[in-house]
Amino acid sequence: MTTVAAYAAPAAKAPLERTTIERRAVRENDVLIEIKFAGICHSDIHQAREGWGEALFPMVPGHEIAGVVTEVGPAVTKFAVGDRVGVGCMVDSCRVCENCAAGLEQYCTDGNTGTYNALDRNGEPTYGGYSTHIVVDEAFTVRIPDGLALDEAAPLLCAGITTYSPLRHWNAGPGKKVAILGMGGLGHMGVKIAHALGAEVTVLSQSLRKRDDGLKLGADHYYATSDPETFTELRGTFDLILSTVSAPLDLDAHLSLLRSDGAFVNVGAPEEPVSLNLFSVIGGRKTLAGSGIGGIEETQEMLDFCAAHGLGAEIELISAAEINEAYERVLASDVRYRFVIDTATI
Amino acid sequence: MTTVAAYAAPAAKAPLERTTIERRAVRENDVLIEIKFAGICHSDIHQAREGWGEALFPMVPGHEIAGVVTEVGPAVTKFAVGDRVGVGCMVDSCRVCENCAAGLEQYCTDGNTGTYNALDRNGEPTYGGYSTHIVVDEAFTVRIPDGLALDEAAPLLCAGITTYSPLRHWNAGPGKKVAILGMGGLGHMGVKIAHALGAEVTVLSQSLRKRDDGLKLGADHYYATSDPETFTELRGTFDLILSTVSAPLDLDAHLSLLRSDGAFVNVGAPEEPVSLNLFSVIGGRKTLAGSGIGGIEETQEMLDFCAAHGLGAEIELISAAEINEAYERVLASDVRYRFVIDTATI
Repeated sequence: MTTVAAYAAPAAKAPLERTTIERRAVRENDVLIEIKFAGICHSDIHQAREGWGEALFPMVPGHEIAGVVTEVGPAVTKFAVGDRVGVGCMVDSCRVCENCAAGLEQYCTDGNTGTYNALDRNGEPTYGGYSTHIVVDEAFTVRIPDGLALDEAAPLLCAGITTYSPLRHWNAGPGKKVAILGMGGLGHMGVKIAHALGAEVTVLSQSLRKRDDGLKLGADHYYATSDPETFTELRGTFDLILSTVSAPLDLDAHLSLLRSDGAFVNVGAPEEPVSLNLFSVIGGRKTLAGSGIGGIEETQEMLDFCAAHGLGAEIELISAAEINEAYERVLASDVRYRFVIDTATI
Repeated sequence: MTTVAAYAAPAAKAPLERTTIERRAVRENDVLIEIKFAGICHSDIHQAREGWGEALFPMVPGHEIAGVVTEVGPAVTKFAVGDRVGVGCMVDSCRVCENCAAGLEQYCTDGNTGTYNALDRNGEPTYGGYSTHIVVDEAFTVRIPDGLALDEAAPLLCAGITTYSPLRHWNAGPGKKVAILGMGGLGHMGVKIAHALGAEVTVLSQSLRKRDDGLKLGADHYYATSDPETFTELRGTFDLILSTVSAPLDLDAHLSLLRSDGAFVNVGAPEEPVSLNLFSVIGGRKTLAGSGIGGIEETQEMLDFCAAHGLGAEIELISAAEINEAYERVLASDVRYRFVIDTATI
């Protein structure tokens, strides 16, 4: 066991504060990672404030982790001391179910082990990336290619894979019209990745406030969903709409923007149930689907893809002392486009 | 114009009564069909009672039509007098949009022309199958193979194609676990077709009342959704759930029965919006989709498939005077499994 510094929420809705936590001793297959940067994901806030249900406290959020390996267990084969690595939303799974066998560890039928706000396979609480160090099994650690700066890479571990995986699964590419709903942390990566995949990309954002950024990041079109005219003009347009928003929205209106056989895929999730008229999917054989992060192999594929295309996240680097303020700014959509904590300041 | 006998609802929620209607003169591409049998679909009742929104009256329902050609227009090439034919839920479409071009006339971007409760391309009201004759463009007429009795074939024109199309689209077949939700007019055809396609078929019905029938029609398993244990036992089981129910249901509970990447496909539609927790599709990358009938070519394919496998509908033959009583019995789920009107009694 090693005592390390961290920022934690002591209770639901309480501000995060500096504390110390214990990291386990490095086991056979573990790597010890000196965390360099940790992204702030909207879901950190959902969980720290129990918006998605009861949570475990104290909570050290953070599942967008980039750092450097400083120690390896005796059985580790993938990594060596000094390697640049990342850890995303999960740190373990059962590894034997049909989903794990298919590289879909995120859908482990036994439940994957969350990087924080979870109990690991031994019943010990997990603590996330708002910390100086973390110990993770090499099987749930990925390599960050040299072409990516660590601070810009950190958000890829959640925002990148969460958008990359459904864009690939629903075949975003040349000849496909793809809309990215929401121009936040996930959305801005969705735009970059969908563009790099060759799709015709439209941003659907509440307002036109971030239009210039959207076009610069690779969008071909940019519409405001607050303008009713958008829904008239774009009716029946998209093969795929990737929804990154976690605010409640009018699903029926958004489904009307799909072509026949089109898919509306949620990666954001409102805290409350949504209402849906089933005729919105029956007409045009439409799909309303969801997608959660991606498997470990696919996460590595995503990082390699982003490095090859020069796609890092757009970030605002902050010190640990600014975390609580950053949370408020995320809730106000006042970030372009991801806060990343310099963990040297913890 | 020809005056023919029909049963019509004079106004929303009014009982149907015998009347006469005008059928158009046979045009270049039309066939005149002497209707022999017309099925009663739950959606006839939804529409006659304005459950799905404002409707056109007087209304002659009926979109499960089986009959014999008695006259053909000069340009007709597909059919001759004496041919056994069927007409389903639509009698026209724009024929040029991308969906029509792809054989998905049901999703015509200009809207298909419903067999009843619609205005045709000339603005004239359409009247359905509760009638002695109908005039239809040959392009929207299909052939009923000799192996199928006309009375048992009639319901295939809606209940058959509505289940066949999504079962094919979502790859029901060997190695796939398919649940049919609801054991009514659509559901019983879903069981027969899914079984004939080679899938492992489970019926999910409110009670076990129709269990013996379900197993006889081809189901491998039969569970009651009124039993909470069903949802525990079958959690994560199905590749595809085809929902034929139009009563409101707990979507989240039903989505939990899908495996990862599974699809819950609605062909029934509640009159009210449903509630959905988006986490139910995000976990396991699940699909909530819909499907509406099928295209004309696919409808012919379905009839040929049903003939090849000896799949007619299970019917209760009634006289026209029994229509109103039959409606009440459909609403009470008291029919095994489709009422078919002997139109000679109109």
